[in-house]
Amino acid sequence: MPQRITPQTKDFAKWYTDVILQTKLADYAPVRGCMVIRPYGYALWEHMQSSLDGMFKETGHENVYFPLLIPEHFLEKEAEHVEGFAPECAVVTHGGGSKLEEPLVIRPTSETIIWFLYSKWIQSYRDLPLLYNQWANVVRWEMRTRLFLRTTEFLWQEGHTAHATREEAEEETLRMLEVYRTFAEEIMAIPVVTGAKTDSEKFAGAETTYCIEAMMGDKRALQAGTSHNLGQNFAKAFDVTFLNEKEERELVWATSWGVSTRLIGALVMAHGDDKGLRLPPRLAPIQVVIVPIHRGDQERDLVLSEVEKIETVLHGTRVKVDDRPQFKPGFKFNEWEQAGVPVRLEIGPRDVANKQVVLARRDTGEKATVPADDVAKAVSDHLEGVQEGLFEQALSFQNDHTHFVDDYEAFQSKVEDGFIYAHWCGSEECEARLQEENRASIRCIPFEREQEAGRCILCEKPSEGRVLIAKAY
Amino acid sequence: MPQRITPQTKDFAKWYTDVILQTKLADYAPVRGCMVIRPYGYALWEHMQSSLDGMFKETGHENVYFPLLIPEHFLEKEAEHVEGFAPECAVVTHGGGSKLEEPLVIRPTSETIIWFLYSKWIQSYRDLPLLYNQWANVVRWEMRTRLFLRTTEFLWQEGHTAHATREEAEEETLRMLEVYRTFAEEIMAIPVVTGAKTDSEKFAGAETTYCIEAMMGDKRALQAGTSHNLGQNFAKAFDVTFLNEKEERELVWATSWGVSTRLIGALVMAHGDDKGLRLPPRLAPIQVVIVPIHRGDQERDLVLSEVEKIETVLHGTRVKVDDRPQFKPGFKFNEWEQAGVPVRLEIGPRDVANKQVVLARRDTGEKATVPADDVAKAVSDHLEGVQEGLFEQALSFQNDHTHFVDDYEAFQSKVEDGFIYAHWCGSEECEARLQEENRASIRCIPFEREQEAGRCILCEKPSEGRVLIAKAY
Repeated sequence: MPQRITPQTKDFAKWYTDVILQTKLADYAPVRGCMVIRPYGYALWEHMQSSLDGMFKETGHENVYFPLLIPEHFLEKEAEHVEGFAPECAVVTHGGGSKLEEPLVIRPTSETIIWFLYSKWIQSYRDLPLLYNQWANVVRWEMRTRLFLRTTEFLWQEGHTAHATREEAEEETLRMLEVYRTFAEEIMAIPVVTGAKTDSEKFAGAETTYCIEAMMGDKRALQAGTSHNLGQNFAKAFDVTFLNEKEERELVWATSWGVSTRLIGALVMAHGDDKGLRLPPRLAPIQVVIVPIHRGDQERDLVLSEVEKIETVLHGTRVKVDDRPQFKPGFKFNEWEQAGVPVRLEIGPRDVANKQVVLARRDTGEKATVPADDVAKAVSDHLEGVQEGLFEQALSFQNDHTHFVDDYEAFQSKVEDGFIYAHWCGSEECEARLQEENRASIRCIPFEREQEAGRCILCEKPSEGRVLIAKAY
Repeated sequence: MPQRITPQTKDFAKWYTDVILQTKLADYAPVRGCMVIRPYGYALWEHMQSSLDGMFKETGHENVYFPLLIPEHFLEKEAEHVEGFAPECAVVTHGGGSKLEEPLVIRPTSETIIWFLYSKWIQSYRDLPLLYNQWANVVRWEMRTRLFLRTTEFLWQEGHTAHATREEAEEETLRMLEVYRTFAEEIMAIPVVTGAKTDSEKFAGAETTYCIEAMMGDKRALQAGTSHNLGQNFAKAFDVTFLNEKEERELVWATSWGVSTRLIGALVMAHGDDKGLRLPPRLAPIQVVIVPIHRGDQERDLVLSEVEKIETVLHGTRVKVDDRPQFKPGFKFNEWEQAGVPVRLEIGPRDVANKQVVLARRDTGEKATVPADDVAKAVSDHLEGVQEGLFEQALSFQNDHTHFVDDYEAFQSKVEDGFIYAHWCGSEECEARLQEENRASIRCIPFEREQEAGRCILCEKPSEGRVLIAKAY
């Protein structure tokens, strides 16, 4: 049997770590707060990358690579940015055996070095827009770390675009948020709420930060991606101007947007159960595991020759055949369920005789016997079914744990139970109280909120609509 | 006209930098020795990655990601390794606003941190082999830097494998060298010499280093990839042992191998000419540029509707249509020649009338008129032709500048003219003299050398075969 995983209800945090370590998604590194992404976890990331990268390219973006190291004084050029990021920086003070004249920080994010270069590259309206993205590692010195969710070093993509007008920048910011929403819902099978961050939660240096917020299996919220309208803040800081069609000099408008390996944590926590991972087929490194069942050489040859035929029929699907002699089928079933493989195919001598195979779905545990001739169609339907099933289950769970409350007492009675929509006056004081008294935060001002007059659940001042509040990662 | 490029014969180094900056492959970063890889350069790297990654996966390797930061004392565990790499390290001394208890180095290469983890993951012969690779950035504090060829930070892949026997490790080392040779010759269209490095040129911590060596357009050699048999050095340093089938404890055998963004420099210098880049079709971000030629709206509509048809027919080929109104065709021809696009397709109203198109090859400059109906086949043949043509031209060039010499005088008369095969006694003294007196080095002890008795061109002591000597990057 694979090693046991702590049940979710007993200790969700322990369950999370158990799943990651036992399915070998990742391991702890010997450096504080860092992790190693192992092959199974990295394969997940590669599928995420490939899907997102395709969406970025379809929307006209090109990949680039900017340096890891940033002169310390660059950060100071944008007041909010340095305040937000300087305390989290790792600092290189020595290189090649000598003390450096100016310390270099390892990028916590790349706005500053990118906008330094944009000042060289952008001269005229003809140079705009610049639609660049990079896949890179970043380092943020986090105090409390957790595998995938918050690590000192993480992998991500960061888009950085430059535009001639405020409207174009805003359009781009929203376009990329929509890319993230589509990716989360259609590829990761995780329903998300989209909206704007409050001023106190926005990116350091942004005018507006939009986000996608997802509900995890313990009902807490996870910010899964952000898209920032940076206004002209970085253009001012790095003096990036262009000549418009009328030959007038104007400041350039900016956006940036990113998602990270944190999404792997989201995938684990949104879909996992007490048996382990449940992976959406569109991202699963192994979509179908085939477990041949046989005793003795004769049965073995019979079954394996059938397995070979099935493999051929399933070309284009990510299939793994598990014919390890040292383990029994039951052990293998458990192991691949723990690993979250969406569909299992079992085949023994009786199945061969009856020209059939057995398919089992990881999301529901349902088993079905299907004619061997229909296996390609049946597997494809099952994969589709698991992809939809995981989304539907996550959506029901989110709906079941979403509450509309109108006063603070009701709020506090529900705050441990997921997403809460409540009225908020807009003040930082009330927002801070939510955090202090409940460790909850305003996750976003949702796009899909009704214009509805109400009163702040804290101070009872007027409010124009509900915000989404939750305990969050 | 695009900006002028310094002719190769006038100043090859200046030509190289001109080409990179003017074709926008890369730009200088505001940090000493660092560069920014711009979209055109990064697209080249993406095609290289995709091709190599496929070859790694076909040979059974999986991708992983290990941390950027390595505790300083890890390097010290392998005596040769620390001697080789410590002087080149960038050191992080502060994080999150505090001085660190132990400084962290930014990986110059990842053997140490990887073998630290392997000691956790490898217990039994069943855990072997481990065939891992990672795509990552590394930092080496180089004194003299040059775009792509030698930069403080660069992108690369590093394979790190663990094996049960010396033989398996040696096989793997050679297998990956062969992958590199195939990639260089078949994808990059660059002929290479394969062989072993001398002891003084091998990787710090390796038992043997194998390499591929290519000739650049100025006849200097460039080490384009290396594959190391690390013996048990890192297993000893990090105490990595396994129980063999007889339940005996043994040390694990290791290999590592890597290629980097330096390959982009190789591509520029192996194929480029005074007009600019010449890119092999298998890597070119744009394989075919279509330049429509027209005056007035009527011609424009006629030509563009034909261009649209051609684009459809060429699906699967990386095509760019350049219909920028502000530039004349001649300007565009020059620009795309500078950018190294392998095939140009011209089409004007007369071509439409005659149901034909004009194709121009970047490698030879030849133009051909082909029937519009045959355009797909003609383009595909032309692309194939350029791929082969570039290889053949590079191979002829290499052959024309390869010399066999038998004494030091002859050597010195040829040392500026490419690859020299000469006898060497095997001593470090003679090797050092080559460097001191000629700034030349032994590039490798070639695999394909004949057992041929001779005398060292320096000390005249006996030698068993010729080595490859050249001035190198």
